[in-house]
Amino acid sequence: MVGVNVLDKRVGALVEIVGAAHVLTDPHDTAPYLTEWRNLYHGTTPAVVRPGSVDEISQILKWASANGHPIIPQGGNTGLVGAQVPDESGNEIILSLNRLNNIRDIDAQGGTIVAEAGVILQDIQTAAADAGMLFPLSLGAQGTCRIGGNISTNAGGVGVLAYGNTRDLVLGLEVVLPTGEIWNGLKRLRKDNTGYDLKNLFIGAEGTLGIVTAAVLKLYPAPAGRAVAFAGLADPAAALALLSTARKAAGPSLTGFELLPRISIDFVLRHVPGNRDPLAEPHPWYVLLEISSPRSEADAAEMMEQTLSNGFEAGNVADAAIASSLAQIDAMWKIRHDISEAQRPEGGSIKHDISVPVARVPEFMDRAIAAVTAAIPGCRPVGFGHLGDGNIHFNISQPPGMDKEEFLAMWSGMNSLVHDIVAQMDGSVSAEHGIGRLKRDLLKTVKSDIELDLMRRIKSAFDPAGILSPGRVL
Amino acid sequence: MVGVNVLDKRVGALVEIVGAAHVLTDPHDTAPYLTEWRNLYHGTTPAVVRPGSVDEISQILKWASANGHPIIPQGGNTGLVGAQVPDESGNEIILSLNRLNNIRDIDAQGGTIVAEAGVILQDIQTAAADAGMLFPLSLGAQGTCRIGGNISTNAGGVGVLAYGNTRDLVLGLEVVLPTGEIWNGLKRLRKDNTGYDLKNLFIGAEGTLGIVTAAVLKLYPAPAGRAVAFAGLADPAAALALLSTARKAAGPSLTGFELLPRISIDFVLRHVPGNRDPLAEPHPWYVLLEISSPRSEADAAEMMEQTLSNGFEAGNVADAAIASSLAQIDAMWKIRHDISEAQRPEGGSIKHDISVPVARVPEFMDRAIAAVTAAIPGCRPVGFGHLGDGNIHFNISQPPGMDKEEFLAMWSGMNSLVHDIVAQMDGSVSAEHGIGRLKRDLLKTVKSDIELDLMRRIKSAFDPAGILSPGRVL
Repeated sequence: MVGVNVLDKRVGALVEIVGAAHVLTDPHDTAPYLTEWRNLYHGTTPAVVRPGSVDEISQILKWASANGHPIIPQGGNTGLVGAQVPDESGNEIILSLNRLNNIRDIDAQGGTIVAEAGVILQDIQTAAADAGMLFPLSLGAQGTCRIGGNISTNAGGVGVLAYGNTRDLVLGLEVVLPTGEIWNGLKRLRKDNTGYDLKNLFIGAEGTLGIVTAAVLKLYPAPAGRAVAFAGLADPAAALALLSTARKAAGPSLTGFELLPRISIDFVLRHVPGNRDPLAEPHPWYVLLEISSPRSEADAAEMMEQTLSNGFEAGNVADAAIASSLAQIDAMWKIRHDISEAQRPEGGSIKHDISVPVARVPEFMDRAIAAVTAAIPGCRPVGFGHLGDGNIHFNISQPPGMDKEEFLAMWSGMNSLVHDIVAQMDGSVSAEHGIGRLKRDLLKTVKSDIELDLMRRIKSAFDPAGILSPGRVL
Repeated sequence: MVGVNVLDKRVGALVEIVGAAHVLTDPHDTAPYLTEWRNLYHGTTPAVVRPGSVDEISQILKWASANGHPIIPQGGNTGLVGAQVPDESGNEIILSLNRLNNIRDIDAQGGTIVAEAGVILQDIQTAAADAGMLFPLSLGAQGTCRIGGNISTNAGGVGVLAYGNTRDLVLGLEVVLPTGEIWNGLKRLRKDNTGYDLKNLFIGAEGTLGIVTAAVLKLYPAPAGRAVAFAGLADPAAALALLSTARKAAGPSLTGFELLPRISIDFVLRHVPGNRDPLAEPHPWYVLLEISSPRSEADAAEMMEQTLSNGFEAGNVADAAIASSLAQIDAMWKIRHDISEAQRPEGGSIKHDISVPVARVPEFMDRAIAAVTAAIPGCRPVGFGHLGDGNIHFNISQPPGMDKEEFLAMWSGMNSLVHDIVAQMDGSVSAEHGIGRLKRDLLKTVKSDIELDLMRRIKSAFDPAGILSPGRVL
C-alpha cells in the first residue's frame, strides 16, 4: 500500500485535469468498477477517473507515462477475462470511457456511423435502425457493453457468420496512445492501402496499446425479411451437414447458425421464465437458424423452407419449427440468449471459449465430452454456440449434489484437458473473449516464442513506460 | 558500385544456401526481374536468388541481417508502385518467391485453401473452382500475379464489394521475418482472440516487415447463377443512386459494380479487338453490374431485372442490356478489363488510384474532371473503377497531338491537383496499389507525424538491421 501523500498527489493531478466531480474515490462510488460479472476478480483502486473529452484522456496518459502510474481503461465492464478491473495492488487507476458517449455522425447513404467509445452497443443498433440501416454486432451484453470495449476485445457474438467480428465492422479509429499522443485514424474508406494497418493492431489489443476513443463503423442495409427456425437433430455432425445445406440455399443471406445441446434447453426452461420448448418432442441437439433477405419476408421464408426440406431429405433434420411472427422470432432467440443465465442456478460452471476449424466441431465435441465426463463422472457438458464460426462455449456444469467449491477447484485441470484437445486440432483457447488476466499464463503455452516476442516488441514500441493495462495479455 | 570481390562473396553465400542453379547473375537471366509493367522503374542487382523452401528463405534473411545486405522480395512482378524492383545502387538482391508454388491443401467443407506465396492467383481460382468453390479475389493481372504479392499489397480488384480486400480473405499466414525467424500463423480459424493481430500487420506492408511464404485463404460456395448487365447513365450521381437500388434488390448478392465513362468504351472499341459497344446508343457513363445467386440463374436474373427496372423508374438508368449467355457475360467483363491496355495507344497517361467515401464519388469526379481539364486543356480524363468501394482509377490521357514527354512532365503537378481534392474529401491517395517507391514522398504529406512515427517504430522492431525492402513505404 502507498502512503496517503502519494495517493493524494495522484488524485490531485487527476482532479486538475478532469475536475473533482469526475474523480471517484469514495468506496461506495468506486465499487461498481472493481468487480465483474462472473465475480472472478476483485481489486482496489486509488481513483476512478471519468474524462469528458479526448483531450482530457490525452492529458491523463501523458501524466501517467511521465510518472509511471498504471492506467486501466474500462467501458461497460462486461469483459469476461478480468482485463478491465484493477488488481489488488491499489495502484491501478481506472479510466472510465462512459462519459464519451456521443454518436458524432450517422450517414445512411455512405453506410457509416461515427461513435465514441462510451456509446452502449444497443444505442448504436437503435440509431442505425432509426436510419433504416443495420449495425450487425449483436451479443448478450449489448444493453450494457460499450463499443470501445467491443473494439478493444474484437467482440464476436451471433452475427459473425454473415458480417464478421467487430474487426470487420470498423473502418476507422481514433486512439489515444499511452504517451498521450492522439492518432486520428477516423477514415470512412472501404479501401486504403497507405502504410501499415495500425487499426487492426489496436482492435483486440484489450487496451494494452492505446485507448480507443471513437470509431467509424460500417452499417448495412436492414434486411427486408427475416426467417428464424429451430431444428432438432441427432448430433453435431448432422448440424454441420445442415450448415452446408443452409449455405447452398441461402448463401450470404444465412445470418445465424447456433448449436444448442438439449441440456441447455432444459436449463432455460427450468430457470428462466417466459420460455417454452421450441419443438413438440425433445431432441439431443438443436440448431437455431436465421436467414435474412434483402427482398422480402416471403423470400427469407422460401430460403428457410428450402433449407429445412433439404435437411429433412438428407436425414439431418428430425423436426423443425419456423417462427411465424416477430414475437416468435424473439422467443426463439431468447432461448439462445438465456443459456448463460440458466446455467447459474445449476451450480458451478467451468468455462471454455474455444474455436476449431468449422468442419472439425463435431470431432471436438465428441472428444471434449468424452474427456470431461471421464474425468468428473456426473458432470454435465453444455457445449453451445456459433457453429458457423467454429466457436463453441464449452461450459461444464457441476454434477448435481457436488460441493460447488470442490468442483470449481478442478477448473484448471479441466481447462488443460479441453485445451489439449483444442491444441491437437490447431484451434484457439480464446475465440472471442480475449486473454486479459484470466488466460495470460495460458497464452505463453499456446504461442510460439517468436510470436510472443513480436508482441512484446510492439508493446514496448507503443507503451515505452508500460503504464497502459500492464499485466493484461502479455 | 561495389568491387568484384564483394559481389563474388555475396553470390557465393547465396549459392551455398540455394545452389548455383538458383542464383541468377547473367544479365539475360536477371533482366525480367529488373523492370516493371509501366516501365517507370529500372534497376540493377547483384543477383536474383530463387529459394525453394521456407528454410532457405530463413537462411538468406539471417545472412542478410547479419551482413547488412538489402533484400527485395518479388512475386509475379505486377506491382504498380516500384516496390518489387531493385534500385540503381546495384546492392539490392532480389528474392524471387516463384519456386514456392505449391497448393499445400484444399478443404471444400471447411472452406479453406493453403497456398504458398508463389502460386499464381488464377491457379488458386481454378483449384477452388475444381473443388466446387469460389476464391473471389479477381483482378486484371490474375494470370501473372502471385498470391504472396497480392497479400503483401492487400490487393483489391473487382470482387471487393461483396468479399472484401485480400486482407478479408486471409485466415492465416506463414512469414519469414527479416531476422530469419519463422512465424507460423497458418491458422484456419474464423475466430481467434489470442493476442495482437500480427497477420494484418504483414498484409499490405509491401514486404517491409517480413516475407509472406504461405497463407490460409477463405473459400466461398460457388454461386449457382450469375447475372451481368451494362447500364447507360447520365452521370456518376445516377450511378450512385443505382448502387443503392441494387443493394436494396440484391443485398449481399451484389458482387460487382464498376463505373465506366464513355471515353473508356471508345478507347476499348478503337484499340482492343474482340469488343463491341454494349448498348445501341452511346451514353456519357456506364455501370457494369454483377449479381450472384446462391440459388439459381433465374434468381440472379430476377434480382437484376428488379434492380434495372427500379433504376429506370427512378430515372437513373437510360438504357441497359443483360447478358444472356456465359459468352456475353465474359464479353461485358472483357470491356472493363481492357481499359488499361486500351489507354496505351492514346499516348501518355497520368494515373491516380484514389478512394473517397462511397457517397462522395460523384462530387470527386466533378471536381477532379474540372480541375484537370482547366489545367491542361484538351486532356482526356478517364476516371473508372470500383464505385461500390469508393475507389476510382482517375487516369488522364494526354491531349491528342501533344508531345508525350511534355505531357508526362506534368505528372506530379496533376497529382497534386487531384490529391488536394482527395485530401479535402478525407480520401486515400492509394486505394489499392500501395506506396512502394512511387508514393513514398507523398505518404509523408498525407499521414500525421504520429502515424509515421508508429510505423517507423514497428519497422525497427521487426527489422532492426533494416535489410528488407529498404526505401519502400517508409
